[in-house]
Amino acid sequence: MTATDIAIAGAGIIGLSIARELTARGMTVTVHDPEPGSGASTVAAGMLAPVTESQFGEEPLSRLSLASAKLWPEFAAGLGITDAYRDTGTIFVGVDAADAAELDRQLKLYRDYGLACQPLSAAEARQHIPLLSPSVSKGLLAATDHQVDTRRVHAALLEACRAAGVNFVPRRVTDPSTVDAGLLVVAAGSWSAKLLGLPVRPVRGQVVRLRGPDELGYTVRARVRGRTVYVVPRASGEVVIGATQDDRGFDTAATAGDTNALLRDTLEVLPELAEYELAEVNVGLRPGTPDNAPLLGRTADPRVVAATGHFRQGILLAPITAALIGDLIATGTVPEALKPFDPLRFDAS
Amino acid sequence: MTATDIAIAGAGIIGLSIARELTARGMTVTVHDPEPGSGASTVAAGMLAPVTESQFGEEPLSRLSLASAKLWPEFAAGLGITDAYRDTGTIFVGVDAADAAELDRQLKLYRDYGLACQPLSAAEARQHIPLLSPSVSKGLLAATDHQVDTRRVHAALLEACRAAGVNFVPRRVTDPSTVDAGLLVVAAGSWSAKLLGLPVRPVRGQVVRLRGPDELGYTVRARVRGRTVYVVPRASGEVVIGATQDDRGFDTAATAGDTNALLRDTLEVLPELAEYELAEVNVGLRPGTPDNAPLLGRTADPRVVAATGHFRQGILLAPITAALIGDLIATGTVPEALKPFDPLRFDAS
Repeated sequence: MTATDIAIAGAGIIGLSIARELTARGMTVTVHDPEPGSGASTVAAGMLAPVTESQFGEEPLSRLSLASAKLWPEFAAGLGITDAYRDTGTIFVGVDAADAAELDRQLKLYRDYGLACQPLSAAEARQHIPLLSPSVSKGLLAATDHQVDTRRVHAALLEACRAAGVNFVPRRVTDPSTVDAGLLVVAAGSWSAKLLGLPVRPVRGQVVRLRGPDELGYTVRARVRGRTVYVVPRASGEVVIGATQDDRGFDTAATAGDTNALLRDTLEVLPELAEYELAEVNVGLRPGTPDNAPLLGRTADPRVVAATGHFRQGILLAPITAALIGDLIATGTVPEALKPFDPLRFDAS
Repeated sequence: MTATDIAIAGAGIIGLSIARELTARGMTVTVHDPEPGSGASTVAAGMLAPVTESQFGEEPLSRLSLASAKLWPEFAAGLGITDAYRDTGTIFVGVDAADAAELDRQLKLYRDYGLACQPLSAAEARQHIPLLSPSVSKGLLAATDHQVDTRRVHAALLEACRAAGVNFVPRRVTDPSTVDAGLLVVAAGSWSAKLLGLPVRPVRGQVVRLRGPDELGYTVRARVRGRTVYVVPRASGEVVIGATQDDRGFDTAATAGDTNALLRDTLEVLPELAEYELAEVNVGLRPGTPDNAPLLGRTADPRVVAATGHFRQGILLAPITAALIGDLIATGTVPEALKPFDPLRFDAS
């Protein structure tokens, strides 16, 4: 007789989404985390963009992402935070000719997936977002790329889990064998590698949070002479600007150079944001994997299930991860949609 | 019979320096401040540059500044923080031809005051500071422009005042008549105007604090195509970058634009600082006056002495302000050096 049916290592958005799903299915759940919400979940901007360049050619991941994007409205509603889910779409903009050519590729990619995507002249882009600078030469309206306020999602998940009777243990799981539960789900993001013995590595991402009037209306994703930056405005006045990407182990110090790069590119396309308050500078560690797809499912240890390695798509993939991991645990059968994400797919031995 | 000989409004570096001076002269002192060190004192970079362009033609202020600069080594030693006073000098650098021409003017200004100042070729500047970028075209070594770690100075002053028996009252003085003391010294920086009925206004200055190896060796003051930025390195690894200057009332929010401007210009001349940690972004309110010189001395209210309006030079002027205000209060006679700074000099009535 174990103390809990299911233990979960990690109280980020993935771990909590799974905890909530499993309690809804009648299981008792204990979540272990020394500091819930201290990882990448509450740093993330929360863009819900299921089709991205980096996933090009990765059909199963794109399918999973598209399916999860469709779940988000109901997921947010179930948490009582429909207003934290903002479905006003995304406007891509480019500055020079090469940036504009990238927008053409982006347009084709979206249309290949059957997603609404509309090219915009510079003037049309400015009609949507009057704050755009004259340096913007071209745009795209991706009407189905939405965003969620990740901090509100995390807080709502914590509250929902507590209300559902999830037990929280404020310590880090360092060895699965020490956890007194029928099953351990490892949803510890970048900290999952040691627990699983699987290839998950921290991929550093810095963001800057501004505070100002809510006047953009859309998420803005800019290409500025080959560099990229996104600007995610919340109704609360928070504006999340991101994100750098590099490997520095578990170093979460923000740097002068990253801050400068994010602000420089943002202010080039949205110069009036110069007057916004600089509220925070944060670094998150995305859990990366060798093929940039998550590790979802059973591991070599029959007591351990992996739900990690979501890289840049952890927020987007939370609803479907919870649903499918819930199916796996409840039925004992691997759902078809999870098969491409077998945690043991890199096992060369 | 009053509770204290002298009350002081403001526990910044000016107020505390005066408190310490007066207790040393045998007076009992009470300092009123809701939050000692919450003002400009601990935001300031602490450059001790007594001769500046903006003071050009303001002889009395330059004389006062030069005299105070000479007091600093002993002032720091008296506080037991000789290592917080860094006397390695300042290197000015310029980027374009107009910047270089400004350095020539600076050189002449320093030499007019008899201060050591040595022109440097770009190569010579880089010999002093290998981190300087190739964009630097010219330099100057101002061997007598030093710096202090303002936070250590403030902390040491607080400790010295407490040890000397200064009484601290954690509230803001809003009306001199409510203070039970023989004399009130108003050293409330930008918050002095209402207390004194004199023209002191907040002049906003934003700084950025980085953290990295202590590898610059000198304070760097750069002209970057007409803009100016300074970089003040501490032995502790703190690097203070400043400073913007604008009027926004008492608004102390840091902005995206100011942060971007400070980092951009710094990284242009010192690109390797991109790797330094972005530790803090702060705004201080310099107490400005109509002629940019301080208000030091008796006011229309015989119970009130002003010691404020130090604008950009409050840290530099703290030792001499304390000494001269001490003389004024102890002797009842206005020291000659204070006469140009009569608080009532703007009184048109």
